[in-house]
Amino acid sequence: MIQSQFLYRVYYEDTDLGGVVYYANYLKFFERARTDYLRQLGINQSQLAKDENLIFVVRSCLINYYSPARLDDILEVKVEIKALNPASIFLNQKIEIQQKLITSLEVELVCVDSVSFRPKKIPNNLKNRLHV
Amino acid sequence: MIQSQFLYRVYYEDTDLGGVVYYANYLKFFERARTDYLRQLGINQSQLAKDENLIFVVRSCLINYYSPARLDDILEVKVEIKALNPASIFLNQKIEIQQKLITSLEVELVCVDSVSFRPKKIPNNLKNRLHV
Amino acid sequence: MIQSQFLYRVYYEDTDLGGVVYYANYLKFFERARTDYLRQLGINQSQLAKDENLIFVVRSCLINYYSPARLDDILEVKVEIKALNPASIFLNQKIEIQQKLITSLEVELVCVDSVSFRPKKIPNNLKNRLHV
Amino acid sequence: MIQSQFLYRVYYEDTDLGGVVYYANYLKFFERARTDYLRQLGINQSQLAKDENLIFVVRSCLINYYSPARLDDILEVKVEIKALNPASIFLNQKIEIQQKLITSLEVELVCVDSVSFRPKKIPNNLKNRLHV
Repeated sequence: MIQSQFLYRVYYEDTDLGGVVYYANYLKFFERARTDYLRQLGINQSQLAKDENLIFVVRSCLINYYSPARLDDILEVKVEIKALNPASIFLNQKIEIQQKLITSLEVELVCVDSVSFRPKKIPNNLKNRLHV
Repeated sequence: MIQSQFLYRVYYEDTDLGGVVYYANYLKFFERARTDYLRQLGINQSQLAKDENLIFVVRSCLINYYSPARLDDILEVKVEIKALNPASIFLNQKIEIQQKLITSLEVELVCVDSVSFRPKKIPNNLKNRLHV
Repeated sequence: MIQSQFLYRVYYEDTDLGGVVYYANYLKFFERARTDYLRQLGINQSQLAKDENLIFVVRSCLINYYSPARLDDILEVKVEIKALNPASIFLNQKIEIQQKLITSLEVELVCVDSVSFRPKKIPNNLKNRLHV
Repeated sequence: MIQSQFLYRVYYEDTDLGGVVYYANYLKFFERARTDYLRQLGINQSQLAKDENLIFVVRSCLINYYSPARLDDILEVKVEIKALNPASIFLNQKIEIQQKLITSLEVELVCVDSVSFRPKKIPNNLKNRLHV
């Protein structure tokens, strides 16, 4: 079964002097979950870069902050593929703590050449794995 | 004269193995420019927290990534206030390198109580300084 | 049984353009392990700050870098208490990947007042838990 | 004249919930100063990597923390070359705020091949620039 929720704890490094997670750092948790999700589908990004010179880069993010997360919290980070284009993936993500919504993210990833950063079609074998 | 562009250099800490600035780290540069912009208007956020228990937190971000920034690049980070509500500020920001657009951000900041995180009206003396 | 090894994965956020973990970021992994280790001994640092105004701050670090860690690596981070003084704790830590030594750390933590940052004796109930 | 002190401001991103700069983040400031120092001597590390496949990696760090830095502080980061070996550089660094010592660092950098990470002799043209 494909897992679409991943748990990560909040440590000192993630907080700022407001006593809560620093606003940019939620993007790190979102990215960990995307990476762990893709790995599960058999998509290893470091392998992809080495073998096919393809990397996924972020094209846009819409983040909403609902409630702050704090030290020692365990974040439940969710990943859902919303749509696939020839060269890009649209995902919806959420961070929750015990069913309380902390942050949401709509993100577009584009498949690009790792040197030129020009968009490339997502290879078919990869695309098939993303139709979950 | 009010400055609305701030320069920051890209260092190793900002990059990832793709050889470019890590996607979450652009939010750090955007925040440095907001802080430096507010300081210029006479708004010192650490003072505000201490004296009035008010802090500004980010409510939402819309980020578009156009072109990657790299080690040693000098980023020109722009800040423009778009609108003011009783308890929130809407800003448009851009990062450019020699007039090439790197990233854009639409961000909403909410004025909240530093303990309860409940929204608070922006004090008038502060609001007057933001009408630039 | 007390666990003294903790596993953390390397993500994009941890790497720099050299393709390996950025040198400062190993300190984050070391700290996660210390926090998880203390939590296991029943020492909750956020509770300690709230209830007794005590925090542990780092006084010194000696880090040796032996071999680089890379994206997707799973780091085995070890924690060992070496000595206890009235107000400080000396720890030895290591990061390994499948028994290959990546980094080592000798670190001194000092117990301080969370407002004045002045050293304070480690409370006895806490000290007893550290004698492992 | 060669400048050996560089100024960097502390922003939100650098702090943690203790209200002070997070212990790993001082290493970022130290590295910015090393990079700016080398750039001044005509040593551009991204160029060096591209042209000669050489990078400098950190071999060891001894950090002492004397006094915490806080939001909005302007850090004075100093760089001094202590010794040169065929393949490595030893530097002493300090962070001060208005002559108050915040942190000190003794760091060894090793010149390595950017792919194999094996030590390489520092090229003579580079070495000459380091004899300051």
